[in-house]
Amino acid sequence: MLTAHTIKILQSLDKKKFRQKYNLFLVEGNKIICELPNSNFKIKEIFSTDPQKLDRTDAPITHVSENELKKISFLKTPKDSVAVCHLKTEEIFKDKNVQLVLDGIQDPGNLGTIIRLADWFGIEQIICSEDTVDVYNPKVIMSTMGSFTRVNMVYTDLVEYLSNTKNINIGTDMEGENIYTFKKPEKMNLILGNEGNGMRPETEKLLQKSISIPRFGKSQSTESLNVSMAAGIILGQLFRVGEK
Amino acid sequence: MLTAHTIKILQSLDKKKFRQKYNLFLVEGNKIICELPNSNFKIKEIFSTDPQKLDRTDAPITHVSENELKKISFLKTPKDSVAVCHLKTEEIFKDKNVQLVLDGIQDPGNLGTIIRLADWFGIEQIICSEDTVDVYNPKVIMSTMGSFTRVNMVYTDLVEYLSNTKNINIGTDMEGENIYTFKKPEKMNLILGNEGNGMRPETEKLLQKSISIPRFGKSQSTESLNVSMAAGIILGQLFRVGEK
Repeated sequence: MLTAHTIKILQSLDKKKFRQKYNLFLVEGNKIICELPNSNFKIKEIFSTDPQKLDRTDAPITHVSENELKKISFLKTPKDSVAVCHLKTEEIFKDKNVQLVLDGIQDPGNLGTIIRLADWFGIEQIICSEDTVDVYNPKVIMSTMGSFTRVNMVYTDLVEYLSNTKNINIGTDMEGENIYTFKKPEKMNLILGNEGNGMRPETEKLLQKSISIPRFGKSQSTESLNVSMAAGIILGQLFRVGEK
Repeated sequence: MLTAHTIKILQSLDKKKFRQKYNLFLVEGNKIICELPNSNFKIKEIFSTDPQKLDRTDAPITHVSENELKKISFLKTPKDSVAVCHLKTEEIFKDKNVQLVLDGIQDPGNLGTIIRLADWFGIEQIICSEDTVDVYNPKVIMSTMGSFTRVNMVYTDLVEYLSNTKNINIGTDMEGENIYTFKKPEKMNLILGNEGNGMRPETEKLLQKSISIPRFGKSQSTESLNVSMAAGIILGQLFRVGEK
């Protein structure tokens, strides 16, 4: 049985303020929940309509009805279980050879897709501006498909970070160097800007280089690729070079 | 003034059945509406909260209030205008050198992203299985950002199409040839399968080759990249080869 008090707290976790107050966030669906024991994330408790399917987790499991699960799930169509997890203490690792740096990404789906991409290409750390959407936002967590457990997320002052990093800071720009001929430096940060406004001018000032994806279509539209798609195509190319 | 009858008809256009019955679909937002006169799409009429911003279109414009626009828009936050357009008579062009073939793509956002990618890379035609989500679905139209005006969409029997095409049929598969070493044939179809189930067996039988994107991350998860992201990374590679 879920108490009204528990429901109220769990429902509040769609807001960053309350996630920080309670130091908790939600992970939905057995498939992703079962990846948590292999990660640094600690589960506080699990609410499940079918607890027997969850024997790999060490956390207490409460059996709930589908109706109860609906009350705590952030999904239109709730999955089988919801895990209440502790936020991880943020730590910044030493610069990795290839890192992503996000300057004000706002859309949860874009952040989720970018984390999934990072995981695919083995990028272990993403540095975010303080106003980038929170990784613990339920929509971000859902769209990472579990990848958030394998990529270290850091929220920090980008100007300070980019001024002090030893990695080469590389942005994207329609006028930038063609990614197909670009030679990847050994240690680099790929900086991706906000969906509508791009990078902040103070971030742009700290770039050592810009790259671009050539457009083959005849469209006269100024519409560029979505930021996460551009990141995917660029990473696809960078890692090709890395393969040689 | 919008009559209740007009509102009812326009609202019904979120369903394929009614789009076909009335031979109409909606395009929202001045930015995309202004690309329509350069395309083969014909506008029947426009409802706008600010008609003066739309002087490039030849269609009759009705001034509506924001409240009225809300009643006909499919967006949570309606834009400035809604254009009611005629469906285009479907025609199949002669095979182009690079084409996409979609076998049961269901998510409107994925289809929209794939059309936008096609436009970026200058791919002029996409062949879809009959159960692929309808291009005139309002969510697809929105997520193409205008690219639907520049890519020819064909819905047809894929087994028949793939059996008769002169293009080489190439699928994606975890066991497929590494895209980084793959040599693009001059004329090819890239076949993309359904989000959950992949390609149908009868489609798979008609492939001449499969390719794959190598994974660099250490994740043991079986989760692959989203279909539209995979398409983007593959096209980024194919067009690199094309550049040489």
